[in-house]
Amino acid sequence: MTKNKEQNLESLGEFGLIEHLTSQIEIKNESTLKGVGDDAAVIDYQNKQAVVTTDLLLQGIHFDLVYTPIKHLGYKAVMVNLSDVYAMNATPKQITVSIGVSSRISLSFIEELYEGIKVACDKHNVDLIGGDTSTSLTGLTISITAIGEANKEDIVYRKGAKPNDLICVSGDLGAAYMGLQVLEREKRVHADNNSVQPDLSGYDYILERQLKPEARKDVIEYLKAAGVKPTSMIDISDGLSSEILHICKQSNTGCRIYENKIPIDHATSLMAEEINMNPTVAALNGGEDYELLFTISMEDYEKFSKETDLKIYTIGHITEESKGKYLVTNGDQEVELQAQGWNAIGKH
Amino acid sequence: MTKNKEQNLESLGEFGLIEHLTSQIEIKNESTLKGVGDDAAVIDYQNKQAVVTTDLLLQGIHFDLVYTPIKHLGYKAVMVNLSDVYAMNATPKQITVSIGVSSRISLSFIEELYEGIKVACDKHNVDLIGGDTSTSLTGLTISITAIGEANKEDIVYRKGAKPNDLICVSGDLGAAYMGLQVLEREKRVHADNNSVQPDLSGYDYILERQLKPEARKDVIEYLKAAGVKPTSMIDISDGLSSEILHICKQSNTGCRIYENKIPIDHATSLMAEEINMNPTVAALNGGEDYELLFTISMEDYEKFSKETDLKIYTIGHITEESKGKYLVTNGDQEVELQAQGWNAIGKH
Repeated sequence: MTKNKEQNLESLGEFGLIEHLTSQIEIKNESTLKGVGDDAAVIDYQNKQAVVTTDLLLQGIHFDLVYTPIKHLGYKAVMVNLSDVYAMNATPKQITVSIGVSSRISLSFIEELYEGIKVACDKHNVDLIGGDTSTSLTGLTISITAIGEANKEDIVYRKGAKPNDLICVSGDLGAAYMGLQVLEREKRVHADNNSVQPDLSGYDYILERQLKPEARKDVIEYLKAAGVKPTSMIDISDGLSSEILHICKQSNTGCRIYENKIPIDHATSLMAEEINMNPTVAALNGGEDYELLFTISMEDYEKFSKETDLKIYTIGHITEESKGKYLVTNGDQEVELQAQGWNAIGKH
Repeated sequence: MTKNKEQNLESLGEFGLIEHLTSQIEIKNESTLKGVGDDAAVIDYQNKQAVVTTDLLLQGIHFDLVYTPIKHLGYKAVMVNLSDVYAMNATPKQITVSIGVSSRISLSFIEELYEGIKVACDKHNVDLIGGDTSTSLTGLTISITAIGEANKEDIVYRKGAKPNDLICVSGDLGAAYMGLQVLEREKRVHADNNSVQPDLSGYDYILERQLKPEARKDVIEYLKAAGVKPTSMIDISDGLSSEILHICKQSNTGCRIYENKIPIDHATSLMAEEINMNPTVAALNGGEDYELLFTISMEDYEKFSKETDLKIYTIGHITEESKGKYLVTNGDQEVELQAQGWNAIGKH
């Protein structure tokens, strides 16, 4: 992938580009019978079930090329899909990738994007089995579909939560949102005075959470090893508040979330202080954390080993539906949870 | 879907929109265990294999909203994907649909688009199992992934053609391209003088071929009933020339296509004459016909019943690779086939 960097897309053509980008792909999974190169890919899960999810990422809505390293963007585009597969307690096996790019974009730009996609696939042992590449008259468009497999009895839906179940989250929240605030601030400063270089030092953790999130394969593996099957699960893409409401709605339950139990990293709190914002709000409504939110029965809680590096935080419990859905604040007040999360239609 | 036509998208929000659009979806296939409404859909093909294909349609590249009825666009967006599934000799069962729309677009516009998508799904007995809906800062974006099933032994790849196999096509070619020429011409006339109404009368057939193509489910069913398994198959989206070259390349063969055997509808010829174009060129390079191109062994040819309304045209035969890939013209000359088909990267 190192030669022909300056070759333009027109001279390659669509088939040439696809061949160029996919020639080095090696199939990793037994279930992938045919990848790129026919009218469709062929997969065989035998006696397992398939889960399918898809996400569309549009320039200016979901990402800003001013501050997003293109390789990270490719990586993240895969992660947001794999995260949905893990949230079903399934293992991702295949993805298709469709991209629309301006014909003025360089080949090396697209190669970088695919490089990020491939790193993500390698890390999660996923096969890139097909896709579509097109010119776009407007911005960069990335559409990914991920397919995964699971035994029928292992699949976890949003709907299985029961009163008294514990509500757990797999990592700290609000950091990705705070990373975005840093990037947006530096973009504004740079726009006002473009001799000023962006100052991103000291914000590593929250920037990485925004630019290079990691789908929680390790959590799924840990749950399996511990013999714990969550009663419900969802990934946190739109903020804790929105996600727990999805679980409650589909499970016909209420919930209590305790503000003082919500895991918030020190770096998130520092940045929140800098911009005069309550970090709990970032956790509840910020989104893009890609942690797993799940419920487990009380009995299963004891199965979590104390000897793992992996942190599972218990942040509340499920209640009867009639008890409502509330956040219990540090001041011991009950505030009704509202879905104010990332709303791509409403907010942009 | 009739009320709230004037409701704007912002007030609905993303989840509201998805719920609004998907609330009336009924699952048609046993293999669809869970459709819209969780992190991922769940499907179970048991002992069958799954085929997966995806297509990205971008405004200004793949469609022009000036002359494309939005409901037809939804229908066509599904058809181009189902066509790829049929081209594997498989049966489509599920699709996911992701759309990006401007927040200025009305709810009724999106409803129309989904209406076309649903009509297509109903006709082909396909379940809409998920997707993503987002604001777009630019044009309309439609990304569809189709999943189908087949018995392992029934799947037909591009690579199985053998010397002496007959080359068959399921319907006439070049009409969709000619329909596009009519639409583009009327658009230019209207742009020059917008008091002139577009005159599309008399062009019904070629316009329908362009705006509302039909994926050839009937052909797959006919082949199965006749006991014929093609040795290779592909759908014609980029023109006959490009597609037969794909088959030859993957099968390591050559071919001879006979110009006088290529099925061209009278309406296509008339329009070609009007614009002073050779209709064979439209068939070879026009694209978007969504007919099936396949090869069969000589022995299988006799299995085609004379009593069907369904027309299968034999247009040539496969040769040894060393014999090259040629069109035999009406003047009995051999012209090397070239892939000049629809090339979304190169031409737009």
